Amino acid sequence: MTLWGGVFQSQTDDAVRRLNDSLPFDWRLYEVDITGSQAWAASLYHAAVLTRAEYDAITQGLEAIRQEFASGRFAPAPDDEDIHTAVERRLTEMIGPTAGKLHTGRSRNDQVATDLRLWMLQAVPQTIAKVRDLQRALLRRAAEHIHTLMPGFTHLQPAQPITAAHWLLSFAQMLERDHQRLHQLAASSAVSPLGSGALAGTPYPIDRQALAEHLNLANASANSLDAVSDRDYVADYLYAASMIIVHLSRLAEDLILYSNPSFGFVKLDERYSTGSSLMPQKRNPDPLELTRGKTGRLVGHLTGFLITLKGLPSGYNKDLQEDKEPLFDTYDTLSLILPVVTSLVDTLILNPDRMRAALDENMLATDLADYLVFKGIPFRQAHHLAGRVVRLAEARQVRLSQLSLEDYRSITPEFDGDVYEVFDFDKAVSRRNLVGGPAPDAVRAQIALLARHLQEEI
Amino acid sequence: MTLWGGVFQSQTDDAVRRLNDSLPFDWRLYEVDITGSQAWAASLYHAAVLTRAEYDAITQGLEAIRQEFASGRFAPAPDDEDIHTAVERRLTEMIGPTAGKLHTGRSRNDQVATDLRLWMLQAVPQTIAKVRDLQRALLRRAAEHIHTLMPGFTHLQPAQPITAAHWLLSFAQMLERDHQRLHQLAASSAVSPLGSGALAGTPYPIDRQALAEHLNLANASANSLDAVSDRDYVADYLYAASMIIVHLSRLAEDLILYSNPSFGFVKLDERYSTGSSLMPQKRNPDPLELTRGKTGRLVGHLTGFLITLKGLPSGYNKDLQEDKEPLFDTYDTLSLILPVVTSLVDTLILNPDRMRAALDENMLATDLADYLVFKGIPFRQAHHLAGRVVRLAEARQVRLSQLSLEDYRSITPEFDGDVYEVFDFDKAVSRRNLVGGPAPDAVRAQIALLARHLQEEI
Amino acid sequence: MTLWGGVFQSQTDDAVRRLNDSLPFDWRLYEVDITGSQAWAASLYHAAVLTRAEYDAITQGLEAIRQEFASGRFAPAPDDEDIHTAVERRLTEMIGPTAGKLHTGRSRNDQVATDLRLWMLQAVPQTIAKVRDLQRALLRRAAEHIHTLMPGFTHLQPAQPITAAHWLLSFAQMLERDHQRLHQLAASSAVSPLGSGALAGTPYPIDRQALAEHLNLANASANSLDAVSDRDYVADYLYAASMIIVHLSRLAEDLILYSNPSFGFVKLDERYSTGSSLMPQKRNPDPLELTRGKTGRLVGHLTGFLITLKGLPSGYNKDLQEDKEPLFDTYDTLSLILPVVTSLVDTLILNPDRMRAALDENMLATDLADYLVFKGIPFRQAHHLAGRVVRLAEARQVRLSQLSLEDYRSITPEFDGDVYEVFDFDKAVSRRNLVGGPAPDAVRAQIALLARHLQEEI
Amino acid sequence: MTLWGGVFQSQTDDAVRRLNDSLPFDWRLYEVDITGSQAWAASLYHAAVLTRAEYDAITQGLEAIRQEFASGRFAPAPDDEDIHTAVERRLTEMIGPTAGKLHTGRSRNDQVATDLRLWMLQAVPQTIAKVRDLQRALLRRAAEHIHTLMPGFTHLQPAQPITAAHWLLSFAQMLERDHQRLHQLAASSAVSPLGSGALAGTPYPIDRQALAEHLNLANASANSLDAVSDRDYVADYLYAASMIIVHLSRLAEDLILYSNPSFGFVKLDERYSTGSSLMPQKRNPDPLELTRGKTGRLVGHLTGFLITLKGLPSGYNKDLQEDKEPLFDTYDTLSLILPVVTSLVDTLILNPDRMRAALDENMLATDLADYLVFKGIPFRQAHHLAGRVVRLAEARQVRLSQLSLEDYRSITPEFDGDVYEVFDFDKAVSRRNLVGGPAPDAVRAQIALLARHLQEEI
Repeated sequence: MTLWGGVFQSQTDDAVRRLNDSLPFDWRLYEVDITGSQAWAASLYHAAVLTRAEYDAITQGLEAIRQEFASGRFAPAPDDEDIHTAVERRLTEMIGPTAGKLHTGRSRNDQVATDLRLWMLQAVPQTIAKVRDLQRALLRRAAEHIHTLMPGFTHLQPAQPITAAHWLLSFAQMLERDHQRLHQLAASSAVSPLGSGALAGTPYPIDRQALAEHLNLANASANSLDAVSDRDYVADYLYAASMIIVHLSRLAEDLILYSNPSFGFVKLDERYSTGSSLMPQKRNPDPLELTRGKTGRLVGHLTGFLITLKGLPSGYNKDLQEDKEPLFDTYDTLSLILPVVTSLVDTLILNPDRMRAALDENMLATDLADYLVFKGIPFRQAHHLAGRVVRLAEARQVRLSQLSLEDYRSITPEFDGDVYEVFDFDKAVSRRNLVGGPAPDAVRAQIALLARHLQEEI
Repeated sequence: MTLWGGVFQSQTDDAVRRLNDSLPFDWRLYEVDITGSQAWAASLYHAAVLTRAEYDAITQGLEAIRQEFASGRFAPAPDDEDIHTAVERRLTEMIGPTAGKLHTGRSRNDQVATDLRLWMLQAVPQTIAKVRDLQRALLRRAAEHIHTLMPGFTHLQPAQPITAAHWLLSFAQMLERDHQRLHQLAASSAVSPLGSGALAGTPYPIDRQALAEHLNLANASANSLDAVSDRDYVADYLYAASMIIVHLSRLAEDLILYSNPSFGFVKLDERYSTGSSLMPQKRNPDPLELTRGKTGRLVGHLTGFLITLKGLPSGYNKDLQEDKEPLFDTYDTLSLILPVVTSLVDTLILNPDRMRAALDENMLATDLADYLVFKGIPFRQAHHLAGRVVRLAEARQVRLSQLSLEDYRSITPEFDGDVYEVFDFDKAVSRRNLVGGPAPDAVRAQIALLARHLQEEI
Repeated sequence: MTLWGGVFQSQTDDAVRRLNDSLPFDWRLYEVDITGSQAWAASLYHAAVLTRAEYDAITQGLEAIRQEFASGRFAPAPDDEDIHTAVERRLTEMIGPTAGKLHTGRSRNDQVATDLRLWMLQAVPQTIAKVRDLQRALLRRAAEHIHTLMPGFTHLQPAQPITAAHWLLSFAQMLERDHQRLHQLAASSAVSPLGSGALAGTPYPIDRQALAEHLNLANASANSLDAVSDRDYVADYLYAASMIIVHLSRLAEDLILYSNPSFGFVKLDERYSTGSSLMPQKRNPDPLELTRGKTGRLVGHLTGFLITLKGLPSGYNKDLQEDKEPLFDTYDTLSLILPVVTSLVDTLILNPDRMRAALDENMLATDLADYLVFKGIPFRQAHHLAGRVVRLAEARQVRLSQLSLEDYRSITPEFDGDVYEVFDFDKAVSRRNLVGGPAPDAVRAQIALLARHLQEEI
Repeated sequence: MTLWGGVFQSQTDDAVRRLNDSLPFDWRLYEVDITGSQAWAASLYHAAVLTRAEYDAITQGLEAIRQEFASGRFAPAPDDEDIHTAVERRLTEMIGPTAGKLHTGRSRNDQVATDLRLWMLQAVPQTIAKVRDLQRALLRRAAEHIHTLMPGFTHLQPAQPITAAHWLLSFAQMLERDHQRLHQLAASSAVSPLGSGALAGTPYPIDRQALAEHLNLANASANSLDAVSDRDYVADYLYAASMIIVHLSRLAEDLILYSNPSFGFVKLDERYSTGSSLMPQKRNPDPLELTRGKTGRLVGHLTGFLITLKGLPSGYNKDLQEDKEPLFDTYDTLSLILPVVTSLVDTLILNPDRMRAALDENMLATDLADYLVFKGIPFRQAHHLAGRVVRLAEARQVRLSQLSLEDYRSITPEFDGDVYEVFDFDKAVSRRNLVGGPAPDAVRAQIALLARHLQEEI
């Protein structure tokens, strides 16, 4: 069955059917499609388009179809173009011509837009929960490493010592912004297009606001022409997901680097590594590489969908059928990856000894400059002098603390014997005790604040 | 002058300098850079790093430099790598070594991130205002055409009659969502990274929250490692802008189509058309084509920037210098295009006669089906019967209203003499009087609601 | 069975397995995987790693597995990570431990790269053939409309009359460039990575060039480290496909516009239209809209894959597993769309009357200017004068040919009575009889040349 | 002066002018625009449209304008919309109304398309030369390190030892494919659209093929409607450039990693590093990070331009004006980056000691499996046994060569005393002496072949 055809004399070409049909991928909308149809039936009943008996027959039939889907017993027919057709066809088989009254005043244009909104209503909180889980794992691990020192890098060159907790929390903060985006999307996407018809609404006296609320959507859409072709919420999800995976790609990059034995800062639990078909010794961080690699997939989906939207004329255009596959694939990808990364973080073996061993006194050159600042030298000059100290130590092939006081004084007489106190990594970190800083106390405050967010908002 | 160099023995290669230097495009940050430096100087003073005299010298020097920039008198030096270096170099020329104290505890990493946040603080409201202006123009024009009928299309095929006001408002609704995104961005980007140093904060006792508020930024960033490499707000702006231009590309597409003489629904004021070097008769909608074409530019910037972010290791990486050019170009593009589209809409010549002439009775086939629904026929069957009516009229090469009652009854005896009342376009539109519908009354309500939003939020 | 594991103590996490496993999408490589393995077995035999008996057992076993796949009898096991593992596992079941000799000196890294090259060897000619089919359809239809006049547009505004054949051929020319790209790709991708091992080749004395030729690949890859992570050919295919769909999107746009009744230049055969669930009269150009819409999908795949490649360190990285899904989906999309567009073009109903009716004398304004050029007036001035003629006719609300000679002479006395001869659309087109021009003779030459290309190269 | 206007009554809006005008970025086309105009003038002369005197006046005037541009004396006028207008305006000032004859039969549509083709004729070889220079640098450095061993990685985990030459050459091979793409583009883009007019050719008897050859373009375009909107060659360049920068991003990633002191495999010459404004010790690989970061810029340009092309109707559309900025920026970016990377490679300090120190006997586990293969054990089983050896050594915390023969025999009795001969990194590499392998002899052959390509083709 197709939902149309009276005006047609020829049958659709088979290849066109394959191109056109969306059932292979919109199948998963059955739940929300049925929910939407039941709500629409209620509206038709309240608008006196359906009798009570018709309404009951329709809603009960739909409920039975829902069960068929849920239990895997639903059998698609060759002519089922899409989930909407499949459900209406089955309803007709079940309850006869009354089923044909369900589509009164409704178009697949507003129906599919509503389905997708309802699907988001479930999907966005699922993604939020998985983001939250990963934040929690990062927090847990951070709490264990408040005093673990490691090199902080800029330009991937050793920069200054930080705490491992601070490093782990930096990703929790990125995810906090991702959470914020999803949170806003949950609100902004809760709009009901139902009642917009094909583009021009419907002449039946539907109470669209009541219908929206019946569907747990905050508001009825404000313009029917816009409503049937509005896919902003799909793009918003694809964008929010792109940012999540961009953030995860950075975490993945760090962990891939740090698990190379030249760093050796971390080791993946074997359950999160895989081996090589040729090289017996290999334990590879495949899940992290796939996480990083899938950044292409998700950003590609976002870009692709914006391309699809570009330059479309007013109203519904079939181009919009290209919304579901990128949306579902993005959701599925995040649903698979986020828990893997969470478990991987939870089981990650940090190696504080290797981290500390990678600290290098040159990373305290800024503290050396600060030492001179405390002696009254303007920072810019202090910076230059500290640079010259580093150069001298390099020429001598010694560490900064191995230069003699004489050496120091050869650079500037402001150096005194207390200069050697600079070369204490723990103190250097602890001194950086301001809001957002890496010092243990600042980190504890950061954890506390994040933990509060995590409890509050879900 | 470079801000570094003590550790170096060789001079930077010239081509590297050209590759590295950002002054050609970060020049425009002078205003916010100076504002940020003044606030930092205040923090250093409160932290007792600067004396009052030093603080005064620095802030007054900076103020003088701001004047030099504003008046076009600022002269860059060959070694000015970026705006930060240029300003500090000039300050040194003005007030001597005290200038070297300004950078105490600060890195260009937190400085540039702060500059960009402060720039957003000005830019986002500018973009919002321009979006609002275009919405207002659409509202004004819609108010003039509440009763103007035009064909509504789906799949670019005639679908149902709507009002021109409804069509115009559909774009105002898209822009309403754009406004919402910008509004949220204005809030989420108001974070101060200052005090995050290169990655690890600073040992000087800076009150970062007070500093943030001094800069009109709501909060201090929560993690210094994250803060120096967080460019989410840049991506957020690029995304919001991409959605704006995608929406504008749809408006442009409609207007380009509708100004083709085969449609003739609209005509551009000559001030918004241009001619041909070869064909004397041409009046081309260049601004609309450029609007549509620039969708590529802006979405390309978004995609490109996400690529730049992908897989970056922790902390600041120089890759991030690629943030400014796409951001500024996107802002400038919107700043140029939005007012042009606004004026173009304001001066657009609608042709209600051509619009009405394009209405075709087949567009009332749905109403014909609804007619049968009122006679008790289930919609699905009514749809099929109406389709057969259309096919019959096509075979006879007549309009629907030209078929005889006999013809109608040959399809189904439910048709009565009152069927001819269906073929009234105005009534068909007026019947669609629900929330979000195209009927004049519904459109008036839509205008009133949007007008209220427009007054409230700016 | 996994192909590794000796070094591991724990089992891989289930979610990691789901993330990691590629069998769901690399299944379709079974044919080329088996072909590649048979060739590798031959090389091992020639290198005296396998005995004749072992070689026979392996190749016959592989042949039997190929039959299992082809007939749908192949049963995957839960531990089959990918097609390579599945085949080796099955071979082990069939021929015992000898199967374990097949992977000697080989890694999945060079194996999968070889598989993909072999897959391209079949896929690219398939795509070429479909491009050629569409070109042939365009040529056939062009040949029917060498004398059919239609408006040519620039900026979607009427510009000059052209022939419908010329318009149809413009798309055949775009596809000619697409063909060229695919043709070059067929050559450049015919490289054999086999023998590159995981990254460092193999110590066994394999004749890699002979092996390559055995596989119908022109050359052995030149650097093993590069070979295992080279996916340029995948990107090349994605790019070539992106250009194809961009070209198709332009054809689709034209046909969507031209089938709107305000144009009415073409009508789709009903087999290539679909209807509406709500509006009984609708015949929508869905296949064309999906073609246009899928531009996003394919360009998204290209962009996404380039993102995946960006910044990967040397050698194979698991990120590269993200190559197959976009590649296969792109191939499948083109394989579905190209034949649909071909049939749609073949059955397209052109309406020469509506095309001619859309011609408008203003489209001869350039010829009017040329008329003045023949009288000796410099073109720039002639252009200006012809523009003034158009403006005068507009003011009078008449056609150009309806202006009196007096009117013409009021613009410039160079106009004579022969000016009215300008207003002949057929002559205007016939005059444009240079290489690449729209005149019937030029179009015939264009068809002849393209037809020759089409015969020669396939 | 605009090149049009006769039909217009109102002046173009100022903001529209700013949006529309392309002179700020098409200025650099002056050289090719003048060359194209001179060729066109010659064609007009041969077609008897220009007298000899007019032709001489025009070509000499154009030559004088070329000098003005070249010497920086050319003064743009406020109404110069684009380079074509600017040149024609200046020519008119110089030689009077005769200048107005130059545009006879020509449109800016075919003119700008020709200009861009001519620009490519110069630009592509420039890019090729820079790619070749980088390949030469890689070859030079490879020749120095044929015997330098280093760890080869897969999944960024130690895999097998390779030679540093082999690693360097892997990038030269990537660039070889880039060269191939550019080489093909140089041929495929050498097409002359001149004579295509606005879309429909021209009635003047122009010998388009002779004109094409006059311009050093191999062929006249085959379809005028296609020719004026064909920008495939722009997309081809953007794609070829994207692949170059993707390859460079991988080289950059390796060098950034390897110059981290935990690796210490390479050190950048100071001229190719820059320092920090805060941290005195820093030497950052900024040029490499910018190279990696600019992948976003170039892929963004490619994506953006494909978006611009998507769905354009037939013929020239103003959207196409968005071709030049991404094209020129891409060219300029490569022109800046390629030489920097070349010099950086040329001056790169390799540290063979650190490379060798990073070798680890586990990287010979594959050789250990091969040892067992030579004893007759099927590889799959040998792989498993070697994996168990590695696990045993890890449990004992010793190197593989430190396990006793007894230990080995506890895994399998096939192990003999000669097993210890496996643990020789140099021999392991030398054994991999097949085509494309890392062994010194294979690398020498690889260098020789590449060197031959480099000499031949430029």
